[in-house]
Amino acid sequence: MKALRAGIAGLGTVGAGTVKLLADNAAAIAARAGRPIVVTAVAARDRTRDRGIDLAGIAWHEDAAALAADPRVDVVVELIGGAEGTAKALVEAALAAGKPVVTANKALLAIHGTALGEAAAAAGVALAYEAAVAGGIPVIKTLREGLAANRVTRVAGILNGTCNYILTTMRETGRDFPEILAEAQALGYAEADPAFDIDGIDAAHKLAILAALAFGQKVDFGAVHIEGIRRISALDISFAEELGYRIKLLGLSRRTEAGVEMRVHPAMVPKQNLLAGVDGVYNAVLLEGDAAGKIFLQGRGAGAGPTASAVVADLIDIARGNTIPVWGAAPGALDAAPALPIARHFGAYFMRLMVLDRPGVLADVTGILRDHGISLESMLQHGRNQSASVPIVLVTHETTEAAITGAVARISALPAVLEPPALIRIEPN
Amino acid sequence: MKALRAGIAGLGTVGAGTVKLLADNAAAIAARAGRPIVVTAVAARDRTRDRGIDLAGIAWHEDAAALAADPRVDVVVELIGGAEGTAKALVEAALAAGKPVVTANKALLAIHGTALGEAAAAAGVALAYEAAVAGGIPVIKTLREGLAANRVTRVAGILNGTCNYILTTMRETGRDFPEILAEAQALGYAEADPAFDIDGIDAAHKLAILAALAFGQKVDFGAVHIEGIRRISALDISFAEELGYRIKLLGLSRRTEAGVEMRVHPAMVPKQNLLAGVDGVYNAVLLEGDAAGKIFLQGRGAGAGPTASAVVADLIDIARGNTIPVWGAAPGALDAAPALPIARHFGAYFMRLMVLDRPGVLADVTGILRDHGISLESMLQHGRNQSASVPIVLVTHETTEAAITGAVARISALPAVLEPPALIRIEPN
Repeated sequence: MKALRAGIAGLGTVGAGTVKLLADNAAAIAARAGRPIVVTAVAARDRTRDRGIDLAGIAWHEDAAALAADPRVDVVVELIGGAEGTAKALVEAALAAGKPVVTANKALLAIHGTALGEAAAAAGVALAYEAAVAGGIPVIKTLREGLAANRVTRVAGILNGTCNYILTTMRETGRDFPEILAEAQALGYAEADPAFDIDGIDAAHKLAILAALAFGQKVDFGAVHIEGIRRISALDISFAEELGYRIKLLGLSRRTEAGVEMRVHPAMVPKQNLLAGVDGVYNAVLLEGDAAGKIFLQGRGAGAGPTASAVVADLIDIARGNTIPVWGAAPGALDAAPALPIARHFGAYFMRLMVLDRPGVLADVTGILRDHGISLESMLQHGRNQSASVPIVLVTHETTEAAITGAVARISALPAVLEPPALIRIEPN
Repeated sequence: MKALRAGIAGLGTVGAGTVKLLADNAAAIAARAGRPIVVTAVAARDRTRDRGIDLAGIAWHEDAAALAADPRVDVVVELIGGAEGTAKALVEAALAAGKPVVTANKALLAIHGTALGEAAAAAGVALAYEAAVAGGIPVIKTLREGLAANRVTRVAGILNGTCNYILTTMRETGRDFPEILAEAQALGYAEADPAFDIDGIDAAHKLAILAALAFGQKVDFGAVHIEGIRRISALDISFAEELGYRIKLLGLSRRTEAGVEMRVHPAMVPKQNLLAGVDGVYNAVLLEGDAAGKIFLQGRGAGAGPTASAVVADLIDIARGNTIPVWGAAPGALDAAPALPIARHFGAYFMRLMVLDRPGVLADVTGILRDHGISLESMLQHGRNQSASVPIVLVTHETTEAAITGAVARISALPAVLEPPALIRIEPN
């Protein structure tokens, strides 16, 4: 049977890894795809860089968009990244030319996914993106195909390896965020400009994609509530341990009768929850379906091998002629339940205060909580220090985000409360 | 678009669950499948039994084979079970009639999978079996599609919920096997005739399927080495804890240069291994690919909901027109690496002896191990009891199955060794 001819745009770690994987496992891939998958063209800027791959006989384009028009290319693989610019133009051009697209670009899918899904449906070709979320873990396939018979009720994931590495190392060493971030940057686990990862944007892109698939919705990145990990302290990590929790940056989405909630923030995860045990650069996703029950997936979320594994799996699906609607159902069949704002969140909270150790502080704080209808599950205070500040930890029962926010504003204003309270949502098991 | 019309053979828990799931989630399933999936015919013996499902307007056959010929049926769903007889005849007849088949029948696939795969390929239709292994966990899809770009190197799974429930309860209660088995039977977690589960046959059927997919081989149930859990004692479970292990019934398959090993047996799993934490009736699979690295999947391995979830996912794939070769590649492209006999196994071992507490016993035992070239990593002996037997636990370094078997034969023959040694393979992390 005729080979499937791929044109790869972007020859960074993942692009080079994809070329290499297609070459290394060519025979097995051809057997599974029913025909060979060959790279016939690539697009990248620097032609002189040694990428450790053999590009002999492969056409070279400096302009990525040329891949869409190249008659030697059946399928375009977009590994440039970024929600706008070259990547977006290339994907649009390829779909317009009736060519299927494989991409690892979560930002593009999260922000322009609805329009791109419509373009792919109009062209009748695949737009595949297994590599966009959780690297080598086939979570897109699991949601879009494996759990297709289910009403999914909940998605919870550790979706950013950099944040998970930093939080894990903070816990293991007892050291604080800035120090561990600097170390992660030196080791190459965090970018020179880490904002995209540590402020939760990357995880939010991935969560928006997962939530759309899970609930049969249009992708809506703008509706994701996002908080990063900059404000997590070694102190709170150690209190979490004491209370039976681990602090993880989670992507969370639930569908309730009122709508769909989507949020990315640090959360206290009970230690018996499978997500609590996911350490270092690993990614993991917990899915809950009405028929299948809970399903947990863990694996490597980034790196050349895992990401290339996902890219080539998509190519094999395309070579086999198997196409799934981009968002799991035809564009017209996508649901539009309202997104719930974070103010509507209902749950338990961890609150840590730094207070002057003097009589009456606790009475003031608990009085404010009572005024807001918030009851406490537990309280922790260690040691005494009459000349300086001491931490007090309060764990609330379930309450509303509005109530806790109101209470925190008043507590912050107490003279004996020395810094803004640390507030971390507790995720039920 | 025209509905996909399913004929369901077998209306036990899973069959009734499938009818119910197709009805309950009909709208979402139609959106994802691109067309409605409707049950037009069923086959079961007892027409009077109340199964809690609405069968109005659905044709009833007493003879399952009639579903293959029924012109109202586009796809046959075989949920009868058993490797021979009615189930096999129905699947063969459906494929011969050019109808795709969905089945949850692991015994049938493990034993007759090669011939059935050839029949499906000849007819050009799907034979789908996600529900045959690990219930609601999409492990077939993960191996056959998600990891299709990888050379898989290792499969390790907890594939039988009954055994895992029994071993978990033995550990939690400290009680012995016969007692916990009786309790599991009373609770409905174990069958009245439990042999199929506790002797490892069910897990071996599933492992044979996974190994075939992982390594691109013809399925070869006969080559699986099988040991069940009857001989596991509370004493060994408690020693395992002390040494940092959990005892799990594992299905294990590895591909080495010499061939493919397939084995089902109780194993000592290091506590830091993800499989060690899988308790109760859960199933889990650890897969290792050369590109993706380690991927871990956990979920419910049985029950009406999870199994129906997998059956309907297969129906949705068929409704979408997506067909994957039964064994991941065309029959002619399947590999035939030799199966390695258990005698070729190489690994560490846990050995527990019951000995008379008298001088010289340990010297005799360690002398025999030395004669067989086996070195020790550690030894445990608790307490003394000069009038009765005491347990001695030996943990070996890696050695061959042949060497350890030879040593055990000689150790068993020592006068001071009072019962046959308990020998449990240790699985590396």
